Order: sequence, then C-alpha cells, then structure tokens
Amino acid sequence: MSLTVKLHITNQLNLNLGQTSINNKTKFYTPRIRTKPIYHSNPMISTTLYNKPITTMHVPSYSSSIKSSLIDPDGGALVDLVVPERERAKKKLEAEALPPVRLTKIDVEWVHVISEGWASPLRGFMRESEYLQSLHFNCLRMGSGSLVNMSLPIVLAIDDETKTRIGSSPNVGLVGPNGDLVGILRSIEIYKHNKEERIARTWGTTTPGLPYVEEVITPAGNWLVGGDLEVLNPIKYNDGLDHYRLSPQQLRKEFDRRQADAVFAFQLRNPVHNGHALLMNDTRKRLLEMGYKNPILLLHPLGGFTKADDVPLDVRMEQHSKVLEDGILDPETTIVAIFPSPMHYAGPTEVQWHAKARINAGANFYIVGRDPAGMGHPTEKRDLYDPDHGKKVLSMAPGLEKLNILPFRVAAYDTVEKKMAFFEPSRAKDFLFISGTKMRTYARTGENPPDGFMCPEGWNVLVKYYESLQAEEALQQQAVLSS
Amino acid sequence: MSLTVKLHITNQLNLNLGQTSINNKTKFYTPRIRTKPIYHSNPMISTTLYNKPITTMHVPSYSSSIKSSLIDPDGGALVDLVVPERERAKKKLEAEALPPVRLTKIDVEWVHVISEGWASPLRGFMRESEYLQSLHFNCLRMGSGSLVNMSLPIVLAIDDETKTRIGSSPNVGLVGPNGDLVGILRSIEIYKHNKEERIARTWGTTTPGLPYVEEVITPAGNWLVGGDLEVLNPIKYNDGLDHYRLSPQQLRKEFDRRQADAVFAFQLRNPVHNGHALLMNDTRKRLLEMGYKNPILLLHPLGGFTKADDVPLDVRMEQHSKVLEDGILDPETTIVAIFPSPMHYAGPTEVQWHAKARINAGANFYIVGRDPAGMGHPTEKRDLYDPDHGKKVLSMAPGLEKLNILPFRVAAYDTVEKKMAFFEPSRAKDFLFISGTKMRTYARTGENPPDGFMCPEGWNVLVKYYESLQAEEALQQQAVLSS
Repeated sequence: MSLTVKLHITNQLNLNLGQTSINNKTKFYTPRIRTKPIYHSNPMISTTLYNKPITTMHVPSYSSSIKSSLIDPDGGALVDLVVPERERAKKKLEAEALPPVRLTKIDVEWVHVISEGWASPLRGFMRESEYLQSLHFNCLRMGSGSLVNMSLPIVLAIDDETKTRIGSSPNVGLVGPNGDLVGILRSIEIYKHNKEERIARTWGTTTPGLPYVEEVITPAGNWLVGGDLEVLNPIKYNDGLDHYRLSPQQLRKEFDRRQADAVFAFQLRNPVHNGHALLMNDTRKRLLEMGYKNPILLLHPLGGFTKADDVPLDVRMEQHSKVLEDGILDPETTIVAIFPSPMHYAGPTEVQWHAKARINAGANFYIVGRDPAGMGHPTEKRDLYDPDHGKKVLSMAPGLEKLNILPFRVAAYDTVEKKMAFFEPSRAKDFLFISGTKMRTYARTGENPPDGFMCPEGWNVLVKYYESLQAEEALQQQAVLSS
Repeated sequence: MSLTVKLHITNQLNLNLGQTSINNKTKFYTPRIRTKPIYHSNPMISTTLYNKPITTMHVPSYSSSIKSSLIDPDGGALVDLVVPERERAKKKLEAEALPPVRLTKIDVEWVHVISEGWASPLRGFMRESEYLQSLHFNCLRMGSGSLVNMSLPIVLAIDDETKTRIGSSPNVGLVGPNGDLVGILRSIEIYKHNKEERIARTWGTTTPGLPYVEEVITPAGNWLVGGDLEVLNPIKYNDGLDHYRLSPQQLRKEFDRRQADAVFAFQLRNPVHNGHALLMNDTRKRLLEMGYKNPILLLHPLGGFTKADDVPLDVRMEQHSKVLEDGILDPETTIVAIFPSPMHYAGPTEVQWHAKARINAGANFYIVGRDPAGMGHPTEKRDLYDPDHGKKVLSMAPGLEKLNILPFRVAAYDTVEKKMAFFEPSRAKDFLFISGTKMRTYARTGENPPDGFMCPEGWNVLVKYYESLQAEEALQQQAVLSS
C-alpha cells in the first residue's frame, strides 16, 4: 500500500459531479460543485483549468507596496508559540516547578505543529469546547462568528496518575520523551478521553488495525488536557533533516522572497514518480496560462508518524532531492520542505487538516487526488474510504472556502511514448497502471520499472532502501535461528 | 430507562463553564459559553434568566403590521412538498408508471418529516453531497454560502434488486408498506450506503444494540437514493392521534393566532411529571420577566419510532392531556402537538436535529436538559453519552446561532414542601431524586409515588398502561405454558 499512487480522471469526475449539480433542484450550495469543472473557489479556474482554452485571464491585483500577497492564515495571524530567547531562562525555571506531563514522540510532533502555527488559530492542545467542535463539525467558531476548519482533534492524553499529580494546578510543564523540558501548558482544562467516540467520529470506523489508533490512542490515558502552549525552544529532531523543516512563517518568507503570486501545495508520503511530476508541472503551466506570473510549488512530504510499511522520511527526502537534481521538477519554482504533522490515515476527515495547514503556510492552491489520506482497509480487501469522498468532502468543508482545490488527473505509463502521461481513454490499451504493490515488488526484486516511470537516481534510492531492509530481515532471521 | 428524567443544576454548570471560558485564552469563540450563564444567544437572557434579578428588559420590537414575528425557518421559506389537490390525479398516474421503491414504516415517517418542512430547506431524501455534509459537518451549505444545521442523515436505503429495477430512470415512485402510492422522488442519485461509516459518524460508536441501527440500518439495503420529494397526500396514521400532528405551517399559524412573541419548545418522549411542569412554567415566568408579553409553550412529544421499552405514543398523549386537564400546564399558553420524527438516540448529534426542526416550527427558545436524546449504553453500565455533551454541542452547532438555548435546572422531590421543586444544595437532604427506574417500579407495582410528583390523573394513565402490559405478559406466559 505504501507506494500506491492511484490518480483520477479529472474530466470524468467533473462531468459526473456536474450532472449531479444540474439535477440537484434543492437550494443547497454544493460548494465548488458547479455545473462544469469543480473543486475550485475561483470561478475563472473552475471553467478553464483543465478543460477549456483560457478565455478570461485572472490576474491577481496587488501593488508592490503590499508586503505579501499570500493567502491570509486562518484567524488572520500566524500563531507562533516559541518563547522569545530572552525569556527562556525564566520560563524554564517556571516550567521546572510545575507538575510534569510526559510527552510521547508523537505528542512532541503535535507540539511542533501547534507551536509553529500550522494549526492557526489554535494556540495549544484543545480544550473540550474545541475538541467537541472538531469532532462534530470539523471546524471551530471564532470570536467573530466565522468558522475555521479543524477536522482532527489535536489533543494531549494523560493517565489517571498524571491527572492526580496535576491536581488543581492551572499550568503544567511538558517533558519530552528523553526528560528534556519542552514547554508549558497554561490555564489547563482536563476532560474525559472517550476513545471509542473519538475514533468513530474521526475515522468513521472502529475497525481494528488503524495505525494511529493502535500506536497512539489505544495506549493513551483516559483524560485529555487542553490549554495554551508555550514552547521553550524550537522543536528539532537532529536527524539531518531539520533544514527541511521550514515553519509556515519561514515558508511564507521564502514565497515572498521568490515573489510568488500563487502557491500550490502537494502533500505526499510516498516517493515522487514521473506521474506526480507531470501533474505538478502541468498545474504550474495551467496557472501560468491563467495569468499568474510566478506560481511556486510547495512539495510537502509529511514528516511525522507514518505506518510501518510506508517508506521512511529520510529515504523519501533523498528520493525527492534526486527528483529535483535530475531536473524532473524545477528547483527555481519548487520548494521542498517537511510538514511535521503525524499521519492519521483518516481519509476525508484528515485531508481537510492537510489542506488547512497549507493555507497557514501560504498555499492558495491545493492538489488533491484519489483517496487522499486513505489506506487499504486493515482487515477487508478494499480501500478504507470511498476514494472519491476525500475530494468531495474537501470541496465542501466549512472554513476552506478560500482555498482553491485542484483535483488530480489520472496519469499512467504510456507504453507507446514510453513515459508517464495523462491517461487517454480512447487508447486505453496503450497505458499501463503501475500500482504501489507493483512498484514495491520491482524495487524489492531489483527489477527496473519501465523507462520513464521514475528518474533513475530516485529509483536507486528506493532500490537501496529495500535492499537494506532485506539485509536487515536476513540478519534478524539469522539471529533468531542461531539463538 | 424509558422514564428516566435526570435534570442538571444550571448554576453549577454555568460556574464550571464560566471558568473554562475565563481561562480560555485562545481566540476561539465558544459560542454562547460566556463567563456567566450560558447557552443563550441573547445576551439579555444569558445574564438574567436563571440567576439574577432582571436589570435590563429585552422587549422584542416589531410592529403590528408585520404578519408574523416568528423566527424564520431555515433557508428562509418553509418547505411544503405535498402535491396540490388539483394535481394529484395526474401525479398519481405518473407515479404508477415509475420504477417503485418500497418504503418501510420508518421511511414513511421521514417522508412525513421532509414533506412538511421540518427539515427545511431539505426538499427530499439526501443526495450524496448533502449526506456527506451532514455526516462530516452536521450542517449544509446553502447557495448563499450560509450554513443550516442538519446533523442527521435523512436518507432512503434501497437494496441491489431495487437499484437494478430503477436502472437509469431519473424518477421513482414511492410505495408505502401497504402498497399505497406515497409519492415521487425526482432527479435521483444513487450512491453507496456505507453503514459502518454512517453509524460511526452519527452515533460516535459502533456498539451493538443501538435501537435505530438494529431496527433500521442493519436490515437496510447497501445503496442510498436521494432526490426531490413530492408527496401525493398528506401523511396520516389513522391512529386517533392525527389531530395532534400539526405541521410546522399549522403550528406557525397557531402561534400567530395566539399572538405569541416568544415560542419555547420542549422535546420529550416520556410522561410529563411535575418537575417538567415546574421547569416549563418557570421558563414562561422568566420570559415574561424579560419583557415578552405572550410566550407560548410548544409541548412537543416525539411521535416516530422509539425503542421498545419507551412508553408508547398513545399512552404518552393521554398522560399529557391529563396534565393539561389538571391545570398543571396552562392550555391557554400551551400547544401540545406531535413531532413526527423517528428517534435515533444519537445524543449530541441528534439533539441538534430536534432543535433545528423546532426552528422550522417557529420556536425561538429551546429547552435542553441532561443527556438529551441519550440512553443507557446498550452493553455497559453507563450513559451512552457524556450527559453534558448534548447541551454543549447544541450551544456550538453551526446553523443554530439564532436559536436561544435554555438549559434545564435540576428539579427533585422536596420532602418538606411535598412537591417537585428546584434542587437547593444547601438543604440537599430534604430532596428525593426519583429515577426513571423507580418511577416505573412504582407504576408497575401499583405503589403511588410521593404526593405532588405527578398529577393523579396522569399517573393513573401510566399505572393502567403497566397493568395492561403485565396482563399481556401473563397471557403470553400462559400461552407458552399451555402450548
């Protein structure tokens, strides 16, 4: 499953949904589901991006005197919860005196996410009112009455013992897995962690085998603690990849420096093949045709928790860098950075989080494919989610109206042209769909995929990774046999 | 469980939540959760209704030239899908020629609900875009961009055979359980019925034993069909209670006729005891103190599907009528009518539906108690939902901002005053909490509850019902023994 890359035919999709919309005589707004191409809040795009020649140019108007033309972060201002350097010593002393709450590795990933403003305007782990809104409505109401999207509960679980230790203290100290002080959670509220309800409402299933549930929720405590976060030092991993971990603020600065007038984000947790690249390059071309002068691609692999059989982050980052070195993607118009969030594999619910976080990083276009944030059903032979629900739910999500959603077009290997190309139904027999399983089998067995499927250097990274895996497995087997 | 009436201490609740709100330094709007009394969108009410003397009068301003001062229905206009009489013959002929879809008894209850506009602006069984919005966001986006609340999926399930029979027909005929033509569903869309996802997202649990799931969803087909509804004749049950089944339009007319300037709705599926009555009468008094001239109570028992051990509708209606005959509630300022919806027992998700439907009937105040639309966990010894989540979720629900939410105060039997009274913590030992189980035991054993718990005539109705139940059980046992 880890390398599965199934794309979808945009035209087909648009047609179907267009039809739905025509037939729909209720007065409901099926947001961005218009009679013609959909999933775009910008009407210029919706009628032109993938189907028709450009008839009207949409040129964003802003004067050079405006500092940034990027999309506003949710809530208006980017949250930054890292304590200024001059206050750190004092706050550290304070934190040391507070009842400690021990964080897991994944808790720290969420601290990272919150502290840099990916979840803006969220300023800490959720209190109950935010938690309930997230679970029931996938959005939070602001003081102004407007809604921001927030589909995943970002919560901190504690056990009975920790709850007792906290007592009535309004603040707690956050302690990392290695005993290091990470930050302070202030004005806390402790409330019940109904795991089954959280799982059911987030995943839409309580089937056993959901990776985040098994790794994070099941072993967690029966209480949640919410409050306002302060982080003593920027979160670092010292894994040689920290330079890829750009904060939303840093990304926005870089987009501004490059004078981006459109930023399109591509979320992934898999190696980039030439089908992906085609899609990203094509998107840029279309944006240029629409009148944007300098669209910048944010190639944004997820860097937090992933399931065991996904390709590890360091391997993916190496693979991605080869793709740029090989010129498959243009480094001048591409920024590769790590999105520090853990992965829920919660399909339609999670894809909203992926999109929302990219608004905060400055992206106003978001590319969405088949079955985003989905996976195979843990026990049945099918996808866990309807593969089309992700893009549909994303297109209708409260709080994401300002984001332009770009649906994938399906790409496959064109055996005539010997390259990845957009699938043409009229000559279907010429196309080869290379599934993730097949791609993995190639890499495992040392067999090469067809020429033009992935840049050779990128492919080598994968081959080496699977070779090392096999070597490791062999060693482990030997150890078992000889013990 | 069926008679359980657990109320909640308002002051206590307000205090807790007030504290939360003070501590909450995030910029989120915790809607209607203010530092002091909460769950009211009207600030006048929120600081005065239950806790303090009135300092500011809130007198609604409207001129006598305005036909109705009632709250607007969701979407602006009340949906009415009953075919005008002059068109019925023609439409019936058309319906007869369409592929038939057989409705269950509960499907017909939903047809009733939709056709009269309780679910306005919904104009038929949900298509997929509405279904997904309902499941994920508990609300639907209108063409204007505004949101209306819609927390329950109102859907029509069909099986494979029916789907095949429909083929590509854009319209279907709806056929009642007895073979009678009920209506037409137009411009239909058929999509998958993922039962587990529907259950998980609606109930927040997939535990076995949920009444609506077992009765309705599990036996249903694997497809859902949505479309625009037309109903050939107003839905009637011919059970001697149809005169109680006032449509939202009829209720609005009656409120107008009585020149109501506030309508407060009380949803229930249990007999009314004097604690309920105290609460309803007290609410009216407070509304008068606030400056409303003529608040009208909508006593609104649910009339659709309920679980087997709930008191049946006809018994409840008889009990309610005794309460009015006895003068416990004032007939001049009370309207008793049946809410035709089936019951989901889906707690915080369902209470939104109960509230939303009453907006459409003209209510601008909604009374909410402990654990609304909840029930005992089917397999564990606890409530299925956190008893406070219902009112919290209701207070934050998108699309319900215009409704004033009134929290219950806890009432108990005052053994000194020998009547139901608001609980006073300072003399807690004087109060007796009569649980539903205890009330049922009284009724079953023929023992009388304490004087002043319920009006004697109303109590007799329950005693007779349980006597008849026991007689029936005895007969069945005899039949078993003699067979």
